Amino acid sequence: MRLYQMQDSGNCYKVRLLARQLGLPLELVDIDILKGESRTEDFLARNPNGRVPTLELDDGRFLAESDAILFYLAEGSPFLPTDRLARAEALQWMFFEQYSHEPYIAVARFWWTIKPGGREERKDRFAEWHERGHQALAVMERHLASHGWFAGGAYSVADIALYAYTHVAHEGAFDLAPYAALKDWMDRVRSVPNHVPMDWRPPV
Amino acid sequence: MRLYQMQDSGNCYKVRLLARQLGLPLELVDIDILKGESRTEDFLARNPNGRVPTLELDDGRFLAESDAILFYLAEGSPFLPTDRLARAEALQWMFFEQYSHEPYIAVARFWWTIKPGGREERKDRFAEWHERGHQALAVMERHLASHGWFAGGAYSVADIALYAYTHVAHEGAFDLAPYAALKDWMDRVRSVPNHVPMDWRPPV
Repeated sequence: MRLYQMQDSGNCYKVRLLARQLGLPLELVDIDILKGESRTEDFLARNPNGRVPTLELDDGRFLAESDAILFYLAEGSPFLPTDRLARAEALQWMFFEQYSHEPYIAVARFWWTIKPGGREERKDRFAEWHERGHQALAVMERHLASHGWFAGGAYSVADIALYAYTHVAHEGAFDLAPYAALKDWMDRVRSVPNHVPMDWRPPV
Repeated sequence: MRLYQMQDSGNCYKVRLLARQLGLPLELVDIDILKGESRTEDFLARNPNGRVPTLELDDGRFLAESDAILFYLAEGSPFLPTDRLARAEALQWMFFEQYSHEPYIAVARFWWTIKPGGREERKDRFAEWHERGHQALAVMERHLASHGWFAGGAYSVADIALYAYTHVAHEGAFDLAPYAALKDWMDRVRSVPNHVPMDWRPPV
């Protein structure tokens, strides 16, 4: 399989991490979204929404949206709950991640750290991103006060989805000090076998 | 099952529509988010993220996030593809809906039509919402130019998820006139057996 991706993107990191833990080989094709490489006609033929990650399967078909890719790759593995409700709870947390977490925590990080000049260009937006982002972190903290993992009582794609941008939230000027349960959970995530950090790349 | 919901919410409409098409009885409990009823301590015990729809199962457990609820209810029915990749494609479009569509098309509608005084209060945001919302509609139009449905070659939860706010986009001051394939698809959605409009409520 081939992953069209950007190394700094948490959404792309999710797929690299799960593929590593599943033992699936992955060829990386780097796409520089800052240079518009995800909006070329060639790329739009792979993903009409012009975003990374986009996964190319061995038969040439494509799948987009990081959390849909996680679900697809994890089916039949220990990383996706088999119980029907637990599987839906994993999805619940993945939709939470994309709607209530990523648009504030990942977006603040993009403009604070990734995009040159972004701190100045979007300086009037950080207050809202930080308010909404802290709301999301508080929801996670509340859950983790009484649960070890997000769904099904075990490490799953829901944890991978939420870990990706939470562990680099400081790069968006978030202070995680108030979130004790969250920090313990991040330590647990890092202790799962075959965990790899964001800068890891599979051998070519 | 009991659905904590708001009648005007497209996210809640998704669940009412699918439950009707599955023949599942549903008790509605109306929550007025404009009055803060989704942020009370009682409600947060049901869904720590304080949002509707929230589904209460017959055993007293809760499930949140509209598209996770759709997935849960549709498992084993014709409304969720059985093919592994097609199922992931349905999820791809549901994540697209929550990340690239709803935050612009539903949010513009909320401030334009639902929230009293919203047009004035958020007047400086509509330009961005309309630009991003039209990008999402164009992605749908491009897909629908060569596909009858969003995933698996048949009407599914992906169509329900995308129909909910697309068919009321005009209430957010979107003009759908340029989108011919989109309008044909909305007609097809409305022709599926047991389709119900947004104001429909199950018999008590």
